[in-house]
Amino acid sequence: MTQTHYETNDRFERGQRALAEIDGAGGQKVIDALADIAPDFARYLLEFPFGDIYSRPGLDLRSREIATIAALTALGNAAPQLKVHIAAGLNVGLGREEIVETIMQMAVYAGFPAALNGLFAAKEVFAAHPA
Amino acid sequence: MTQTHYETNDRFERGQRALAEIDGAGGQKVIDALADIAPDFARYLLEFPFGDIYSRPGLDLRSREIATIAALTALGNAAPQLKVHIAAGLNVGLGREEIVETIMQMAVYAGFPAALNGLFAAKEVFAAHPA
Amino acid sequence: MTQTHYETNDRFERGQRALAEIDGAGGQKVIDALADIAPDFARYLLEFPFGDIYSRPGLDLRSREIATIAALTALGNAAPQLKVHIAAGLNVGLGREEIVETIMQMAVYAGFPAALNGLFAAKEVFAAHPA
Amino acid sequence: MTQTHYETNDRFERGQRALAEIDGAGGQKVIDALADIAPDFARYLLEFPFGDIYSRPGLDLRSREIATIAALTALGNAAPQLKVHIAAGLNVGLGREEIVETIMQMAVYAGFPAALNGLFAAKEVFAAHPA
Amino acid sequence: MTQTHYETNDRFERGQRALAEIDGAGGQKVIDALADIAPDFARYLLEFPFGDIYSRPGLDLRSREIATIAALTALGNAAPQLKVHIAAGLNVGLGREEIVETIMQMAVYAGFPAALNGLFAAKEVFAAHPA
Amino acid sequence: MTQTHYETNDRFERGQRALAEIDGAGGQKVIDALADIAPDFARYLLEFPFGDIYSRPGLDLRSREIATIAALTALGNAAPQLKVHIAAGLNVGLGREEIVETIMQMAVYAGFPAALNGLFAAKEVFAAHPA
Repeated sequence: MTQTHYETNDRFERGQRALAEIDGAGGQKVIDALADIAPDFARYLLEFPFGDIYSRPGLDLRSREIATIAALTALGNAAPQLKVHIAAGLNVGLGREEIVETIMQMAVYAGFPAALNGLFAAKEVFAAHPA
Repeated sequence: MTQTHYETNDRFERGQRALAEIDGAGGQKVIDALADIAPDFARYLLEFPFGDIYSRPGLDLRSREIATIAALTALGNAAPQLKVHIAAGLNVGLGREEIVETIMQMAVYAGFPAALNGLFAAKEVFAAHPA
Repeated sequence: MTQTHYETNDRFERGQRALAEIDGAGGQKVIDALADIAPDFARYLLEFPFGDIYSRPGLDLRSREIATIAALTALGNAAPQLKVHIAAGLNVGLGREEIVETIMQMAVYAGFPAALNGLFAAKEVFAAHPA
Repeated sequence: MTQTHYETNDRFERGQRALAEIDGAGGQKVIDALADIAPDFARYLLEFPFGDIYSRPGLDLRSREIATIAALTALGNAAPQLKVHIAAGLNVGLGREEIVETIMQMAVYAGFPAALNGLFAAKEVFAAHPA
Repeated sequence: MTQTHYETNDRFERGQRALAEIDGAGGQKVIDALADIAPDFARYLLEFPFGDIYSRPGLDLRSREIATIAALTALGNAAPQLKVHIAAGLNVGLGREEIVETIMQMAVYAGFPAALNGLFAAKEVFAAHPA
Repeated sequence: MTQTHYETNDRFERGQRALAEIDGAGGQKVIDALADIAPDFARYLLEFPFGDIYSRPGLDLRSREIATIAALTALGNAAPQLKVHIAAGLNVGLGREEIVETIMQMAVYAGFPAALNGLFAAKEVFAAHPA
C-alpha cells in the first residue's frame, strides 16, 4: 500500500523529471501559463503524457520525439507544441538532420504545406539553439 | 549526363526496391490496384515517397516507419495505409512493443479515439503476421 | 412581397432541382434516409447547399464539382459523400480524366493516402457508371 | 402565403437577433468584415447558422455553445471563431468553469495540444471580459 | 498519505464506476478488446478520461456528453467512438432530440458531410436502443 | 536514353517554369526560404507538385487552382499556402468572383469557420493585387 502511495507521488514527480529532461524550459513555461486558468490541467499534463507515457520503457525517447514531431507536423494545427517538441528532439539527442528528415517525410502523408510549415518551424527553433 | 540518366532509372528502380523492402506484398497490391484507374500515380508513388524520401540517408528505416505510423494514427483517416505501414514497421525490424508504444503515445497528441483505432489496426495486422 | 414569397419557395424548389441535376438518385437517397431521424436537416440540405450555394451564378457546376471532389478527397473523412460527388461530377459533365487528375493533385496538399483513397473511390463509382 | 413571407423575413431577422444575443459585438464585426468581399456570405451566416440552427428549440443555447466550443477546440484550426464562441458562451450564461471543463475534456478526444490552445484562447477571452 | 493512497485506488475505481455509468456495456467491450494488445492502455483509459476528466465536478455529465458528441461528429474520423458516446448520451439522460440537435449543429462548424455521417450513426444507435 | 536524360532535366526545369507561371514571386520566395534548412525539399517541391502534377495535361490550370484553393480552405491549417494559391488563381486567369465562390462553397463541406478564414485570406490577397 505504501508502494502504491509512492507510485502516486512518482507519477507526478516522474512527470516533472520527464518534462524537465525532454522539454526543458519550454515545458515549464506551458505549466506556468496554465496556473491561473486550469491548474489541474497542468497536473494532468505532467501526470499522463510525461509521468505515464514518456516514462514507459519499450520505446526510447529519441523515437518518441520522432513520433511526436511527425504527428504534430502532419496534424498541422498545433504550431506552438510542434516547436516545443522540435526543441525537445534536440534535447534528447536527435540530430538536426534527423528532425528535418522526419518533417520532410510528412509531405508524403499529410501534403507539402504541412511539411513546409514544419520545416519553417524547425528553422526557427534551430536558429534559437546553439548548434 | 549518363549518370543523370542512370539516376533517373535509379529513381524508379530505387523506389521499387524500397517498396519491396518496406511494404512487401502490401505495397505491390496498391501499385497493382492503381493500374486501371491511374497508372501514372503508381509511378509517382514509387518515385517520390519510395525512390526519393524513404531512400534518403539521414534517417534509418525503423525511425521512418515510427514517423509514418505516428502520423497515420494521429490523422485517423487512412486506415488501409496505417495497416500497410504497421506491417512495414515489422518488415524493417520494429518490435511489436515499439509499434504499440508509438500508437499509444498518439493519445496525447490526437486523442484516445485515434490511439484506440490505431491499436485495433495493429491487433489485426499482428494477428496476420507470424510472430 | 409576393416576390419574396416566391423566392422562399424557389429556395427549396431550386434546391430540389439542383440536387436532382447534380447528385441524381444518390442525392435523393440521402434525403430519404434523413426522413425518420432529422427531416429538417433534409430541408436544410436542399435549401442551403443546393438552393443557395450550387444555384449561384459566378462559378459553373463543373468547377463547383472539382472544388467539392478536391475538398472531400483532402479531408478524407467523408467517403460516402465523396462517392456521391464523383458521380455528381460525371453528371454535370466532368470527364473521368478530369476527376482522376483532381484527386491525384490532392497528394500534394493532403498526402498520398488521401489521394489513394480518393482514387479507389473513383474506381468504384466509375465501375458502377456506364462509360 | 403571407405566413411564408413573414417566415422568410423572420429567417434573416431571427438570425440577426440570435447573432446579437449570442455573439454580441464579435458577431457583428464578422458580418461587417464580409461586406466588401462576400456580402452574400454574411447573409447566409445570419440565415443558416443563426436564423435556422441556433434558433431551433430542442437544445438550449448554453448546450449549443458547449457543443460549439468543444468542436472548435477539437478541430483546432479556427482560433478566431473559437474565441468568438468562448465569449458567446459567457453571453448565454455559461460559467468560466464550465467553459474550462469543456475545453479540458477535449484533451481526451483531440489531444493535449488542442486542449492547451483552447485553454489559452479562453484565458485571452476571459481577460478581456469583466468577471 | 493514506488519503493519497485511497485517491490512487479511487482514480482507477472511479474510472471504472464512471465508465460503467456513462458508456455501459460499450465501454467495457473496449476495455476487454485492449487486453491482449495494450492492457496498460485500458488502464489509462479508465484512469485519465474517466477517473480524472468525467469525474470532475464543474460540468454535469449531460453537458460532457454533448461536448463529446459534438467533437467526435466534427472530427469525423472516429465512428466507433461516436456511436459509443451517442449511446452514452442516452445513458446519462440526454433526449434523442438533444443528441440530434447537437449533431445537426455540427454542419455549421465541420460541414454537412460530418453532420450527415453523425446523424446516420445516431440512427443506428437509436435503432438498437429501446425508446 | 538521352530522351530519358532530357526528361530528367525537364522535370526540374518544367517545375521551375510551372512554378513561375503559377505562383510567381510567391513560389520563388518559398524555394529561397528552404535553401538553408532543406534544399532537397525545394527540389522535390519543384519536381513533384510542379514538374509532375501541375504540368500534366488532362486538367487545365484554372481548374487545378480551384481544386487547390478548395482543399486548402477546407483543411484550414495551411494559411500561408492558401494565400499563395489565391494569388496563383489570379495568375492563371481565375476571376475574383470565381475564387470567392470556391471558398464560400467550402462552408458546405468544411464548415463556416473554414470558409470565413478562407474569405479573409482572399480579402488580404486581393488587396495586395492590382485589380
